[in-house]
Parts: sequence; C-alpha cells; structure tokens
Amino acid sequence: MTSDDDTRQLADEVKVGSRAALGRAITLIESKRPDHEAAAQALLHTLLPDTGSAVRLGMTGMPGAGKSTLIEALGSKLTSDGHKVAVLAVDPTSQRTGGSILGDKTRMTKLAINENAFIRPSPAGTTLGGVARRTRETMLICEAAGYDVVIVETVGIGQSETTVAAMVDFFAVVQVAGAGDELQGIKKGVLEIADLIIVNKADGDNLKRAQQAVAEYRAALNILTPADPLWQPQVLAVSALYDTGLDELWKIVGRHGRIMRDAGALAEKRREQQVGWMWALLEDRLKLAVSRHPLLASRLPALEVAVREGTMTPTAAVNEIIRELGLQK
Amino acid sequence: MTSDDDTRQLADEVKVGSRAALGRAITLIESKRPDHEAAAQALLHTLLPDTGSAVRLGMTGMPGAGKSTLIEALGSKLTSDGHKVAVLAVDPTSQRTGGSILGDKTRMTKLAINENAFIRPSPAGTTLGGVARRTRETMLICEAAGYDVVIVETVGIGQSETTVAAMVDFFAVVQVAGAGDELQGIKKGVLEIADLIIVNKADGDNLKRAQQAVAEYRAALNILTPADPLWQPQVLAVSALYDTGLDELWKIVGRHGRIMRDAGALAEKRREQQVGWMWALLEDRLKLAVSRHPLLASRLPALEVAVREGTMTPTAAVNEIIRELGLQK
Repeated sequence: MTSDDDTRQLADEVKVGSRAALGRAITLIESKRPDHEAAAQALLHTLLPDTGSAVRLGMTGMPGAGKSTLIEALGSKLTSDGHKVAVLAVDPTSQRTGGSILGDKTRMTKLAINENAFIRPSPAGTTLGGVARRTRETMLICEAAGYDVVIVETVGIGQSETTVAAMVDFFAVVQVAGAGDELQGIKKGVLEIADLIIVNKADGDNLKRAQQAVAEYRAALNILTPADPLWQPQVLAVSALYDTGLDELWKIVGRHGRIMRDAGALAEKRREQQVGWMWALLEDRLKLAVSRHPLLASRLPALEVAVREGTMTPTAAVNEIIRELGLQK
Repeated sequence: MTSDDDTRQLADEVKVGSRAALGRAITLIESKRPDHEAAAQALLHTLLPDTGSAVRLGMTGMPGAGKSTLIEALGSKLTSDGHKVAVLAVDPTSQRTGGSILGDKTRMTKLAINENAFIRPSPAGTTLGGVARRTRETMLICEAAGYDVVIVETVGIGQSETTVAAMVDFFAVVQVAGAGDELQGIKKGVLEIADLIIVNKADGDNLKRAQQAVAEYRAALNILTPADPLWQPQVLAVSALYDTGLDELWKIVGRHGRIMRDAGALAEKRREQQVGWMWALLEDRLKLAVSRHPLLASRLPALEVAVREGTMTPTAAVNEIIRELGLQK
C-alpha cells in the first residue's frame, strides 16, 4: 500500500463507507513504519476535502463515572436518530499497558454490533502527543467515511483532557454525585475547559445528591469568567442507565454548535486548533531531535541534573543545547 | 564589565548588600548585548550558591483590585518586622508599551523610599518568556543580595499568571468584592494555580460583600481537587487600606511554607520549576530558531496558512519543517 493509485483507491473506498477500507486506513495511520507513515499522510491529504462535517464531541471522566455506559446510551440514541457515530479514544495509559482501556468494544456491547457505529480503541504510543495525533487523524478519516458524530473519550490522566479538548468542538466532563455527601472533586484544569459538566447516575437514591451536585457545580462555574464569551458552560444531570437527560444533552451540544457557527466561531476555533496542533507536534519533534542528537544524547541528562540541583541556570543549559544543535541565531 | 575579575567583584558587592551593585547586576541581566548576556550568566553562576533562601511570593490581580496598595502595605509590615523585601514584576504589556506599568515606584511611594525594600519594574522584552526569564534571574540576584522575601507581581494578561506561578513558592490572587452584588469573576486558569484568594477592599460598605465573596470562592474551591494534596487553597478577606488581614495573610504564607518544607515538597517544587523552566526556555529558543531559519523563514507562513485552512495536515507541515532543519532522526 504505497503507490498513489493504491492511496486513491483506498480513499475512494473509505468515502463510500466501506468498513473494511476504514479499518485499513486507520491501521495505516497507526503504523510506525516510515513508508506507512508517508502513505498515511498521502491518504489524509486526499481525504482532507471530505473532512470537517462531523460534530466533534470530547468526553472525559474518572473511572467509575459511567462514561462508557453514557457513550453507549448516547451513541445508540444518535444512531436511532439516523446519525453515524464514531467513538475514538485518547488513552495516555496505552503507552504503558500496550493495550487500551478505552474505546473497548467489550465495554460498549450494543454499539459494538451497531452498523451505524464505529468503535476504535486508543492506539498505542510512546507519547501522549503520538497517541493523540493518531486519534486526531483517525477522526478525520471517520469524517471522510461519513460519520457525522465523532466522540473522543479520555480518562482524566495527565494532560489528556486538554489534549482532547484541543481536537473537538465541544468538551464535556462526566462526574458522579458520589457516595455520601462528598461532592466529587473536579480535577484542576478540567473545569476550565468544560463546555458542559454532566452529573451522571442521577437516578434512584442518587437523584437528590445529583441535583445538589448540579447546583454546586453551577455556583462554581458562575464565579469563573467563561473562556468563550459566546458560551456559558452548562451543568446537566443525566442517567445513562435509565436514558434520562440524553435528549437534553444532545440539545445542549446542538445549541452550542449553532451559536458558534452563527458567529463564525466554530470554523475559527478549528483553524486555531489546527495551527496549535502543528506547533505542539513541532515541539514534540524538536524535543525528540534534541534528546536523540548525537552530541546531546549523552550531555542532556547531566544538564538537566545541574539545572534541577540549581548548580546551573536554565538559561546557561539552554544556551549550550542551542550551540550543540548548531541552531545558534 | 566582561572579565572574570569584574564578575567576581560585582558578585561580592551584591552579596554584601550594595544597592548600587544590585542595580548594576540587574541591568546586566536585562541587557540584550551578547557580551552582557554572557557576563550575566557568569555572574548568576557565581551567585547561585547564595540563592534560594527567600520566600517567593507571587501575586496577580486585575487593575483596580488594589494590588499595589496591598503590596505596599504588606511590604511595609514585613520590613518593619525585620524582613528585606524585593518587589519584581512580570508585565506582558511591557513588550508593547516599552515601559512598565508594574513594580512602578510611583505606585508604591512608601516602599520606594524604604531602605529595606527594593522595587524593580518589569523589564522590557519581546516575548513573555524573555520578560519572565529576566525577572526570574533578577529574583535570584535579589536573594543573593540578602532579600528574604521576594514578591513577584503580574497583571492578569495572557499566560502571565501561570508564568509567575512557575517561579514562586506561593501564588495569591487578589480579587475585590466589586460594586453591586456581582461577584468578580476569576479568570480561567487562575483558580487552578491559586494557593490563596485574597478578597481585598474588605472595608466600609464593601465589608458585607467581601465576606459573601469569601464564602462563594470557598465553595468553588471545595469542588476542585487541590493541585497539591498537602495544601487546600485558602480564601482571606483583607483591607490593604486599613491594614486588616495582613498579619493573617503572612501567617498563611508561613504555614504553607512550613507544611511544604517539612514534607520536603518545597525543595522538590523548586527543582521541578527549574527543569520546567529549562524546557520552556528551550522551546522558545527552538521556535525562534525555526522562525529565523533561512530555509524556513520564507516557507513557514505558507505552511501555517495551509494548516490553518485545512489543506495540509499538521503532521505533513511538521515533517517538512523537521526535514528543512536537517534534524531528521
């Protein structure tokens, strides 16, 4: 799968919605073989004009928040409403575990066999950036394949929420009222990027606590100045188990999309995301080049130790690195 | 001021507390002349063993929050308690205005003539990173000069709060209850990094509103999981005008310092900050090198436009940049 003809043919098969072609295309995106990487970029280039039409929805939540159940319920609702739904994952732990704990078909048994849904686990990778790049490019392939809703999920580990928020139109945080009267804390940094806080498991004995949680999260959001003047983050109680609140959830996503589109803010947000993505990737690659540079590979650890121990200023260390790279202005 | 002897002599004069030497040292740090930059690094290297002994206090607040009045009142209290206080500034606007609106002596008339206080406006700079580097290195010089409290202030513009938080031990956000019953919104990202929210102007007609604000900020902080398990961010009402709450403010800073030191967390936090600083500087320099690269300077804008418009994937653009730089792995 290297020639231009092969690329064009695979692109065509993806566009007409062949699941087999979609799978092959994603495998190509996830491959680390240099010739595959080149072919993957050629494929993406061919498909770019057919991307961008989906609603890009990001979702995060701690283990136990019921994220999978919620995505399964929402995904089933959307497909029965005539949508084609892709569920992708950015799982920072997959680089350690090798396998993925997200987008796992065994967690979404109904969606897994739904012909209008496509579930792809998180690719393995050595860096969050690498995992995220593949997921982001897989999202584009899914859009070209006609999926009009892409849900990108992540667990709240490290910077993964920020990474996912940077590739979607709308970012939701799934919380649970939690046992006892203890309100489940929202991880720092996440409140800042949430367009919506979903209080899940708002059913049975949990209902009262969930409603209380909604009120408290609302109060907290009210003292923050919204990141986007066009949108005041919302709080919504749902029950994935009993399918309550999911219509309202989708209405909120839709309202956000309309407001952003009408103001031309959605297109601009995506353009900004693409440029931000380019610079983030470049930083990753430059750091990689630095750490692999023949003259620096051996020296870098010593420099980092000296800076860490305070025997060398960061400026002096950086000056030396830049000199070694031959990038001196 | 280039030879090693000059450096050693200036270092000695700084260490015995000569204000003139301190001024000359900082001028050297702020200079953009290559030979001055080299001399500045040599000076810093000589002084490093004498740094790190101060309490590093970061403070941010919107214009009108009464930050200057608060710093003047706190600084005066601390000097009368026997402390030597340095007030530095990271002002992202100084790169535009040329001059600085922070650390301005005319704003702190009492401190400006206080022999145990040292006020230095924000250096001019073309990037926030450049401004911050000079301020951070000035902080080290002040520590070597015997200042045991360094207050770094900034206005809430761009990333300046995060930048300041990354160079101090304790970060405080100054808010006002505000006119009417409107609670003053906290800028996103700032709530996340605050060790303390100071509700200023808690006096006269404002007292009730201030106490109400304290309660609401507390409630908001309670739904966030603390960034550091050792410290739950505090909220405190003060009146810089009537000198109320300043003792309690300093007690909180002290308690935070003790808790962090006893757990060995303060030293580790500073080590992490130094390494983080090194990588942030390296990123700045690498990006600068990219934008100034002869082969890329002309090509980069076109690449960024293609990525922005979605006609090129970020990955493809970055691959081309890396190739041009000759940094291909």
